[in-house]
Parts: sequence; structure tokens; C-alpha cells
Amino acid sequence: MDFRTIFSAIGALTAALGISMLLPALADFVYGNDDWLIFLTSSLITTIFGAGLWASSTGGTSELSLRQAFLMTTLIWVVLTTFGALPIYLSNLRLSFADAMFEAMSGITTTGATVITTLDTAPPGILLWRSLLQWFGGLGVVVMAIAVLPMLRVGGMQMFRAEAFETPDKILPQAAQIASAMTVIYVLLTFACAVCYWVAGMSAFDAVAHALTTLATGGFSTRDASLGAFEQPGIHYVATVFMILGALPFVLYLSALQGSVVQLFRDSQVRLFMFLLAGITLLAVMIQILGEHHSGELAFRQAAFSAVSIMTGTGFGIVDYGAWGPLSMALFFVVMFIGGCTGSTSCGIKVFRFQVLARDLYQHVRQIVFPSIIYVKRYNNRPLPDDVSTSVQSFVFIYFASFLILAVLLSLSGMAPLEALSGSATAMANVGPGLGEIGPAGNFASLSDTSKWLLTIGMLVGRLEVLVVLVLFTPRFWRA
Amino acid sequence: MDFRTIFSAIGALTAALGISMLLPALADFVYGNDDWLIFLTSSLITTIFGAGLWASSTGGTSELSLRQAFLMTTLIWVVLTTFGALPIYLSNLRLSFADAMFEAMSGITTTGATVITTLDTAPPGILLWRSLLQWFGGLGVVVMAIAVLPMLRVGGMQMFRAEAFETPDKILPQAAQIASAMTVIYVLLTFACAVCYWVAGMSAFDAVAHALTTLATGGFSTRDASLGAFEQPGIHYVATVFMILGALPFVLYLSALQGSVVQLFRDSQVRLFMFLLAGITLLAVMIQILGEHHSGELAFRQAAFSAVSIMTGTGFGIVDYGAWGPLSMALFFVVMFIGGCTGSTSCGIKVFRFQVLARDLYQHVRQIVFPSIIYVKRYNNRPLPDDVSTSVQSFVFIYFASFLILAVLLSLSGMAPLEALSGSATAMANVGPGLGEIGPAGNFASLSDTSKWLLTIGMLVGRLEVLVVLVLFTPRFWRA
Repeated sequence: MDFRTIFSAIGALTAALGISMLLPALADFVYGNDDWLIFLTSSLITTIFGAGLWASSTGGTSELSLRQAFLMTTLIWVVLTTFGALPIYLSNLRLSFADAMFEAMSGITTTGATVITTLDTAPPGILLWRSLLQWFGGLGVVVMAIAVLPMLRVGGMQMFRAEAFETPDKILPQAAQIASAMTVIYVLLTFACAVCYWVAGMSAFDAVAHALTTLATGGFSTRDASLGAFEQPGIHYVATVFMILGALPFVLYLSALQGSVVQLFRDSQVRLFMFLLAGITLLAVMIQILGEHHSGELAFRQAAFSAVSIMTGTGFGIVDYGAWGPLSMALFFVVMFIGGCTGSTSCGIKVFRFQVLARDLYQHVRQIVFPSIIYVKRYNNRPLPDDVSTSVQSFVFIYFASFLILAVLLSLSGMAPLEALSGSATAMANVGPGLGEIGPAGNFASLSDTSKWLLTIGMLVGRLEVLVVLVLFTPRFWRA
Repeated sequence: MDFRTIFSAIGALTAALGISMLLPALADFVYGNDDWLIFLTSSLITTIFGAGLWASSTGGTSELSLRQAFLMTTLIWVVLTTFGALPIYLSNLRLSFADAMFEAMSGITTTGATVITTLDTAPPGILLWRSLLQWFGGLGVVVMAIAVLPMLRVGGMQMFRAEAFETPDKILPQAAQIASAMTVIYVLLTFACAVCYWVAGMSAFDAVAHALTTLATGGFSTRDASLGAFEQPGIHYVATVFMILGALPFVLYLSALQGSVVQLFRDSQVRLFMFLLAGITLLAVMIQILGEHHSGELAFRQAAFSAVSIMTGTGFGIVDYGAWGPLSMALFFVVMFIGGCTGSTSCGIKVFRFQVLARDLYQHVRQIVFPSIIYVKRYNNRPLPDDVSTSVQSFVFIYFASFLILAVLLSLSGMAPLEALSGSATAMANVGPGLGEIGPAGNFASLSDTSKWLLTIGMLVGRLEVLVVLVLFTPRFWRA
């Protein structure tokens, strides 16, 4: 296999990551914190490594084979996480290497689980860096979902070949073109979110740090109590709205910018997503009222916020819904798996896969009774090909198998059943908080290093739609 | 829809059930118990109803449409259960109608869950009747799996079209031919089992009553403590061996009778089934030894017996494995879903479906990396068609969805989480005991009537491979 094209792309992205480390360096310098030197050093190391890799890998073609594309996608995530962990490891938070890797992976996969217990007193540089990692991760995921996964034909994503972009079927040029279009939209939304947070009562720094992680549906906060540290209801509503915006298909924003806003509301995935959100919110309101935990506007705000935060995989918390009883735990456990729309920054199985699954089962039941009649499955007014169905079904099986295997491994590494099950689910679905000790009111700091490494791998596997990583471990991938 | 053929078949079977009620009548009469009159009365009612239905439904064709076959299969099970419940309801056990229906459904679906808490003092007639219901149910399931389901193309069963029988593709004549061949094998095995039980130390009555439910992988016993009431290790080993024989594909016994015993060991489903049993037994031995519960021969016997009893869906108990701790509970909870081989009296998802699923996932992963290479899936040295894969995947999804829905409904009907989850699994997989209150050391008597009705429906749905019942509830089934 020719590694030059892969290394040159990874080199360029690593150098960009290195340059972006100057932002937290600047923040620490302005706020008079010693850590600016650490970010400057990390920036130099990362940029030089990236530029060197890029410079030494010229001569590759711009055309990637399928196997190169798989390898590159996984490697990009692993390499950027490692360099992203560098300033966290060197910072004066005195974290172990496992902790730093966990935190960086949680950032770049937009998971939002944290091992840092002293966010309230942490220097601004590290807080900004965590938010930036999630923001980059969110952008990366959108580009991957629109430009790369449809060509890799993973998990039914072939259904979303980007018709809007009239580029040849070459991954790299198309990815570059999509990335620039998406970056514009992403920056505009993030800016709008930051302004809204600021108007609702946040400081400028908090507003920017939270806007970066809200649009990324990431969930890193500058406070130990997450958004629960801010008492203004307006802030909670701003977060709720922009988490939803981060979980809608970004391609539709492009259509909206071009004038057809109505397409956003015609999309069947968006409709079902909003419908499910409304239903879960209603259930969570009822659980609070019937259980006499909360009522009125507070109950609605907490229900809507938690439903959106978990379903989009953001993981912000303003209340510990685990305290509402086992029914609430069961509800949010199931919601973790659903996820947002495809082509967004959100995670989980994604709404469209459930739609495909439902159409297949419905068709199968009809076919059993009337085998001679041919049914044409449709999705969003277009025919739904059989290979998409097969792909989606295999994805869901492998997803749940991976979830179970990770839960068993976490159990063996010493986690209690509730923590192991919800930890596996929250890592695979890139949500953030689990249930119990690692719930919205807790964090991941007290886990063993083994558990943290397992969760780090789980976050990567979940973010890369399982199969992108899995194929690298088949002997055939390397043999041919 | 023309109901004459359906009603005539149901009528004939009902009359046969009525005549078979003379056996428990005879037993009660010989042992000098008053209940003989109840069985005689029930026999008269059932036989007259059946014969009447049969006589009044002449003129139908021997050819069944697909929709008629679906309706007939479900109706047979419901009608025979109702009449089978009649003597139980009328007996001096003073059970409610819900209890009697639960017990009869548990019998005829070979589940083996019981609501009777006074088996030790129950008259012989009712004990024999429960055993007979399971024995008929076991035979019915084998015939259904070989003659009916492959034509209905439910859950991938089309792969098992009976090549051994050179009948035209008409359901009723083929079912009759298969039924007579299977009855011979089934009677021989049951007789051998009864002799072995008797030699191992059971009374003649107990030996017959248990042989009937062992081969049916049913699990009804004549004692409250199930087979734990018998202390002879030989009895436990006899049960273990014959439960396995009841869970192997009955068509292969036919080949064995025709001289090719080796085919039984060449079948990949049988191999995996035996391999899984060995693995689960080993795990259960280790759990007992490491937890210092039991050791030596006793640990092995309890492990092998419990593994076989749960995996084949029999449900006999000689020990409460729930007392070995949460790991043991988790193990046996998962084992419940597996089930035995297809075309046997056993229940659950069945081993071949896991094999098909594994082949599909493996092929899918290879196809992702090398989309241009065509792979031919094989099962038992024959090509595995795509429609079988689709069918199996849909089946597994619908099976787990039904399990979850039933568990939620059982929760709402007042059962605790452990009981609701394991109750749903044990009913759907026709195993018998669940975990906790309804575990091997308990029974189902204390549940509410609502819970019992839900479980009764769950047993029927699980036994009829879910889809056979489900299609009846689609509007299209009745419209066309």
C-alpha cells in the first residue's frame, strides 16, 4: 500500500492543529497564566511534526483506494487525538497519559466525558483547548459523513452521496470542497450561538467556549457542574436550540442558504427527529411531575434540555435525571442509542437508520403474506435500494455487539454493572455522561486506567461508525 | 376467505385431543380419584365439539392458500389450548380461568412455567394431562417446523424445505406424511426415556410423566421441586441426555434410522449446539467452584443439567442457579435466547439463525473493503440465499422488539424489573422458569391475572416464531 497520500493529508491536518494551539497560548498569555509556554511548546512540536510529515510524503496521487481511505480516516483521528492530548498532558493539571488521551479523545470525538475534576479553577488556555478540540471534531465528523462515508459504503451511508457537489468521485478533492462549504456554515452558527449565550448572561469567554462545544454537540463545559452552573433559564434554552441545530443534517443548511428553507422541514429524518424529541420531552416532564420532583416551567426546561442533550449526544447537564428514578434512567439509556440526524455533528445510531430498519421490517411482514407482490421501499420520496438495507441492518447488529463486548470488558476492568452498561453506551454513542457514578452529577476521574483506555477506544470506534475501524482488523484488509 | 379447510383440520385435531383426555380419566379411575369424571366430561365436550366442527366443514380443498395456512396455524394453537385448559379449570385444584389458560398454554407451547403450587399432592390425572399437553405440543412444533414454516417462509425457515419427503408443495398432505414419520421417532425416543428413568429409580408413573415432558423439552414435572425432588444422579443424567435428544433436528433421526448416523455429527448446527453447551457447562462449573458454592461431580452435574435445561428451553430444575450470583444470572439470561436446533421440540431463536447472522456480518465486512469481489455464502455445504439472510435478520429484530415490548408491559402490570425482563424472555423463548421470584425455586402463581395473560400471549407468540401471529394483525392480511 502506498502511504504517501495518507501521510501527506495527516501531516497537513496535524500542522493545522499545531497552529491552532496558538489560540489557547494567546488566551493564557492574556489572562497572565504560565501555561502559555506549554501551549507554545506543544504548538511548535505538533506543527513541525505535521509539516515534516507533509513535506516528506509528496508524490502520492490525489486518488485514494478504498483501503487507503479506511486507513487514513482512522489514522487521522488517532494521530490528531495524540497530539491534541499533548498540551493536556503537559499542563499543570498533572494528569496521567491515560487521562490526557481520554480527555483528548472525548474532545475530538465530541463525546464530552471528562476526567478533570477542577474545571472551575482550571486556566483559560486548557478550557479553550478542550472546546476547540470538540469544535474541530464536530467539523471533521460532518465532512466525514458527507464526503467520505458515502464512498466507503458504511452503515447505509451510500444513500447520502452528496449530489450538491458536482465533483468527481475522488475522496480528497470532494472532501476539501465540502469542508470549505461546511466550515462557513459551522462558523456562522457558532458565532450566532456565542452571541446568544453572551446576551443570555454568560461572560464572553464562557460564551465562546460553550458555543464551540454546543454546535459540535460535544458537551465540554468550563464548569464542573456543566451548564447547571449557570442559573439563567435563557442560557439553558439557548443551549437547547443550538444543540438541535448541531444535530440536523448540515447539507440542508446549504439548501436553506440557497433559499429553500422549506426543504429542512420536508426531510423525513428531521421530522421524525423532532417528533421523537417532543415525545421524550413529554415523557420526562410526566416522570418529574408524577414523581413529584419538579413541576411547571422548570420541569419542562429540564426535560427538554436533558432530552436534547442526550439524544444529540451532547452531554451537557443542568440536572441529574438519574435522581428521578429507574424509569427515567431506563428512558435516557435507550435515548442514548438513537442519536441525531446523519451528516450532523451528533452521534449514536442516527434517526435515518431506524427509519430504514422500520421500512424493511414492514416490507418483510407484507412480503410474508403476499410473496408474489413486489414492493418498492421508498425513503424521502426516493427508492431505497436493498444494499442500503443490508448495510444498515449489519451496522445495527455490529453496533450492539460492540456495545455488549465493551460493557463486558468494562465489567471485567472493575466497573459496577450500571456504570459498565451506561459507560459502554455513552462512549459508543459519544454522549458524555452515563448513569450512576459517571452520571451527569459525576465524572470519569475515579476509574482505573484500564477502564479509561477501554472507553477511549469505545469513543473512537463509535465515532467512526464502528465498521471503519473494524475492517482494519480483518486479515484480508492487509493481505490483498 | 374460505374457512372450511381450516375448520375441518382444527375440528379433527380437537376431537383427537378430546379422545386423549380418556388417558388421564383412566389414570384417575385406576388410582381411585374422583377427577376421572371431570376428564370424562371434558373429553365428551371436546370430542363432540371437534367432531361437529369437522363434520360441518366438509367441501374445502386440500390446498391451503398462504393466508389460510397462517390463520390455521395460530387458530390450532389457540383452540387446542382452550380445550386443553378445560379439565384443568374444572379440576379440584380450584384455579381461575386465567390460571388454567396459563397452565394449558405453558403445556402446549412446551414452556413449562406453572401456577400450580401443590403438585406433590395433585391427583395423577391432572399430572398426566399436563405431561400429555406438552408431549402433543412438542410433536406439533416439530411437524410445524418441518412441514409448515418452510412454506410460510418465516424467519429463514425456507432453508429447511423437507427434501426427504417427495410430496407436492401442498401443506396439508405433506404435514400428514411428516407427522406420521415423526410420531414414530418421537414415540420410540419417549419410550426409551421412560425406561431409562424407571431404571434410574423413578416410579413407573413418574417415569412416563417425565419422559413425555423431557422429549418435548417442556419441563412440566410431577413435583413442586421439579427434578430436584429426585436425589439419584442417574435420573439427572438421563434427563440431560434426553433433553439434548429433544433439541436436535428430528429430520436427522430419520436419516439415522435409514443408516447414516454420521450425518447427525456432520450437521454444522448440531456441532455448534454441542460446542455451545460444552462451553456454557464449563462456565457454570467455574462459577460454582470459584464462588465456592459446589464442587466435583455435583458441580458438573448441576452445570450440565442447568445449561441443557435452559438452552433447550426445557426448564427442569435441580438447583437454583440464581443463588450462584449475578454472573450466573447474566449467563443463563443470555442462554435463554439461544435455543436448540431447528426442527426440534426446543424453542428460542435457534442456533442456525445465529450461524446465518454471523455469516452475513462476516461477508458484509469483507464486502466493504472489496466491493467488487462477489462472495458466495454457504451453510452446511450449500449456498445460503439472500432471502434467507433477510428473513433471519428481520426475525431477530422482531423477536427482540417483541421481547422488549412484553417486558415493558409486564413492568406496567406490576412485576419487578428482574421478573419482568426474565419473565418476558422465558415466555418468548418457551423456557419455563425466569429469575428471582419466578426462578427455578419459585413459580408463577403469585402474579396478577394481567401479568399471566400477558405471559400466556408471550408464550404463544414465541412458540409460533412471532411472525406467524404478527401477520394476522396487519390490516393487509384481511383486506386483500
